[in-house]
Amino acid sequence: MQDFIIIGHKAVTTGGFSLNDMPGSAGRMDILCRCINSVFFLSHDLRRDVQAHLLLLGESNPPRVIRFNGEKIRYLNPDERSAGALIKKALELDNISFTETRSTPGVWVREADLITLLREFASDGRKIFYFREDGEDLRHINDGIKDGVFILGDHLGLTEDEEELVLGLSTGTISVGPLSLHADHCIILILNELDRVMVGQTER
Amino acid sequence: MQDFIIIGHKAVTTGGFSLNDMPGSAGRMDILCRCINSVFFLSHDLRRDVQAHLLLLGESNPPRVIRFNGEKIRYLNPDERSAGALIKKALELDNISFTETRSTPGVWVREADLITLLREFASDGRKIFYFREDGEDLRHINDGIKDGVFILGDHLGLTEDEEELVLGLSTGTISVGPLSLHADHCIILILNELDRVMVGQTER
Repeated sequence: MQDFIIIGHKAVTTGGFSLNDMPGSAGRMDILCRCINSVFFLSHDLRRDVQAHLLLLGESNPPRVIRFNGEKIRYLNPDERSAGALIKKALELDNISFTETRSTPGVWVREADLITLLREFASDGRKIFYFREDGEDLRHINDGIKDGVFILGDHLGLTEDEEELVLGLSTGTISVGPLSLHADHCIILILNELDRVMVGQTER
Repeated sequence: MQDFIIIGHKAVTTGGFSLNDMPGSAGRMDILCRCINSVFFLSHDLRRDVQAHLLLLGESNPPRVIRFNGEKIRYLNPDERSAGALIKKALELDNISFTETRSTPGVWVREADLITLLREFASDGRKIFYFREDGEDLRHINDGIKDGVFILGDHLGLTEDEEELVLGLSTGTISVGPLSLHADHCIILILNELDRVMVGQTER
């Protein structure tokens, strides 16, 4: 199982946002929607052994974590609005607490922050990776990334406090290549490397 | 310069479509919008030495080719609606002919089909690559893909006739990895390989 944590610093935490204005009034929710696409979609299929955890920190009820599970997910299409609609449904629940509540099949929501998420994974002995231009090349780590937990930021990256938190618990920092890329593009590169690791196709 | 040709078999060729229903009534226009994102976006920057050519074959005025140029493009944001709005503006022009007309900065539209596009690139001596699961691994071709023209299909892939046409003019077929992926995800993998080629970072 691979887990992706994507932090949306401005992403709203109430379900009233418009699917027609996700980059604006929904606080760059479009970024999180594209990450959902990258985590789950294959051509005419979905990845099953992956999860995405969206950490929403915008107004008015932060923090919220929405978990998408590839084995259970239903009603997800590749377009941004489709992921946006599932996020909306999750945020519209009126009984959100520290315990997860299922909003639609394969989607759960709760109140949780970054430290909580990271400690849960760390206590399960999971390897936590953080992305930075000066990290180790993804292709060098090879099967070391299997069953990893990957932390990605939105357009704002990670704050100093978040970075300190992540680096304190992480196994290492990863670079996906010579240029700095959007989170959803990084996810594609990680999963391709993992696909190659699974079949031993990592040589040049 | 890298050029990406993406074929939208059902993508509508009139500008009246709704940005709120690109997967449905616009004929999977969402796929083409995601490809535009993949071709151009870096973190806080755009790729300049790339072009995307969307070949639209849906109702009511096929065929249309919309060319996006990375050096000249303006008003493009990463979300699907942003690319969709530029496509809409191009298709709304009422003087579309076999000669290109600029609709917005960095975007041109004309009436052209696949064979016309391919012959133009072939007559310029460009290497044309087609994606297929049984193609040569992208990582083996290495700097052979520089300045390539890459042909990608939508959810329907390529028809038999299109595939015959492409294979007749192509330099080779490429595979991006062990699993079959969406066109926009393939583009990310090609561009990452090219980024690595440019700095000699292609080793494992």
